[in-house]
Amino acid sequence: MSRSSFDGSFMQLGPAYLRYHSGESVTNSPPTHRNRALSIRSGGKSGKGSSSGSQLPSFSFSSLRGQSQPELSRKLFKLIKSENNLINAHEAAGRERINIATQLSEWGEQTGDDAVSDISDKVGVVLSEIGEQEDTYAHALDDSRGRLKSIRNTEKSVQPSRVGKAKIADEIAKLKMKEPESARLVVLEQELVRAEAENLVAEAQLSNITRQKLKEAYDAEFLATIERAEKQIILAKHGRRLLSLLDDTPVIPGDTRPNYTEGSQARQILNDCEDDLRDWRPEVEPYDAPVEETSPAKEKQPALDIEADDGPKETETGTKIPESA
Amino acid sequence: MSRSSFDGSFMQLGPAYLRYHSGESVTNSPPTHRNRALSIRSGGKSGKGSSSGSQLPSFSFSSLRGQSQPELSRKLFKLIKSENNLINAHEAAGRERINIATQLSEWGEQTGDDAVSDISDKVGVVLSEIGEQEDTYAHALDDSRGRLKSIRNTEKSVQPSRVGKAKIADEIAKLKMKEPESARLVVLEQELVRAEAENLVAEAQLSNITRQKLKEAYDAEFLATIERAEKQIILAKHGRRLLSLLDDTPVIPGDTRPNYTEGSQARQILNDCEDDLRDWRPEVEPYDAPVEETSPAKEKQPALDIEADDGPKETETGTKIPESA
Repeated sequence: MSRSSFDGSFMQLGPAYLRYHSGESVTNSPPTHRNRALSIRSGGKSGKGSSSGSQLPSFSFSSLRGQSQPELSRKLFKLIKSENNLINAHEAAGRERINIATQLSEWGEQTGDDAVSDISDKVGVVLSEIGEQEDTYAHALDDSRGRLKSIRNTEKSVQPSRVGKAKIADEIAKLKMKEPESARLVVLEQELVRAEAENLVAEAQLSNITRQKLKEAYDAEFLATIERAEKQIILAKHGRRLLSLLDDTPVIPGDTRPNYTEGSQARQILNDCEDDLRDWRPEVEPYDAPVEETSPAKEKQPALDIEADDGPKETETGTKIPESA
Repeated sequence: MSRSSFDGSFMQLGPAYLRYHSGESVTNSPPTHRNRALSIRSGGKSGKGSSSGSQLPSFSFSSLRGQSQPELSRKLFKLIKSENNLINAHEAAGRERINIATQLSEWGEQTGDDAVSDISDKVGVVLSEIGEQEDTYAHALDDSRGRLKSIRNTEKSVQPSRVGKAKIADEIAKLKMKEPESARLVVLEQELVRAEAENLVAEAQLSNITRQKLKEAYDAEFLATIERAEKQIILAKHGRRLLSLLDDTPVIPGDTRPNYTEGSQARQILNDCEDDLRDWRPEVEPYDAPVEETSPAKEKQPALDIEADDGPKETETGTKIPESA
């Protein structure tokens, strides 16, 4: 098994590769940042990013000292941790909701009022299912979080490649100053070519994984958000129907309320609700209709893909990094 | 100001009141519990209600010992605490979501990939608004929780009335055993009549507040659930449109991606999303349409209401207990 699934096709890429083997090979292209004054993110939402500022420092050796996560994957590492907090919060909400449902039902029983007892019991059933949906949502978020880990792991694995390349380029620059005629320069230049080749593969893998998994992760989150929302709407609407069965006309002291006769109607509402939930289906279209103009993007061929048409097509997820973390 | 706003009309209620002044006056009518074998709540969901069991103990003096909350309001007291946990969980979810939105945007900027940078920034805007909706939901739940406090406070205030009545009845029973000819019996019987009169008012207030506030509280929760859901669906659908603008066709090493030209489309999606959220309106109908057959309940007059048609009508929320707690 070759270290990279891109290796085969890479050897045909001399011309494209050689473009990079010039003076700009010392600096990596990704860290050159534009001024983003018009972006929404610079509008004061960051607040805590004081060390990373609005102009990110370009990558350097010193910035790695004392940090357990490589620079490249640090932001995503934190984001994945925050996703975990989000998942825990929704899990807690689901749990508390189910708790409340039981407590409401038991309280209703204690009132000794037939109508309050029946309605609170059935509203409890609805609330409990709302809680279950919240829990299902938390699990969907967890799946989505796994996709972000793929990106983070790839970022992690690309870091040594960038470091290695920069190290050799640095050494060449120093040697050219001290001993411009040194025989070691030839060896180092060859090493740099190899390091740059490796890095080119790594950067392509990173770009592919980043775009693919970013789309997958947040599309899964949005779909889960829609599913939870649509099911909870069904539940809440039937819940309101149940409440409407409770006669809240005030009585005067000593008066007795008319007998509660809405029990079978309440039972029917729960049945309707169950049916509606069972009939729920996710929307089929991969994305919302109005953006049809962008769907041909899937068919678009990358600029150089003609040269390696049989190779990289099946390697879009071809990174060898395990997804667990 | 009279202690109870029912006082005026209560004096006309001799016949109805006297019905209660018989042998059954010692036991309160609410605590007589039915066998609820067919109820959903007995289906094993409770789990923790070991002390309250399926057959609730009827009210007695001894059950009050060492408990800071009166028996009557204890279940709702706990439920209100659980509602607080639920609110906190949704607040935390909202906060984390907004956190993640900023982190995603900043991570995207760091990738140095124009397309990833723009899409992650705008998806971040959508996620951030999803978080805001979660926070708004938490506040709506808090409002709803206030209505439950009204019930709990009324339960609390009704407890001494039940206790007082039972205490006198107990004393009468004991005295009848020991000194059946005692002159004190006459005084006690008079006291009992007064205590029962007070209790009748209290129980009517409790019934009215319970039904009214229960409906209000959970109707508010269901409406808030629908609002959050509908708005988050709008956001998630536009979020998916944004993701569809990100070309994830894999590139091969050394290849460069075509320039990102979807910036204005992405901007337009955010504008559409903003418009849709602004145009959102809650449904007008008080309850869902299918339960029309129950709506005449509002017009129904309670059995004895003809005698006091001008009195109690405006006193349906006439309890003097403050809602704060």
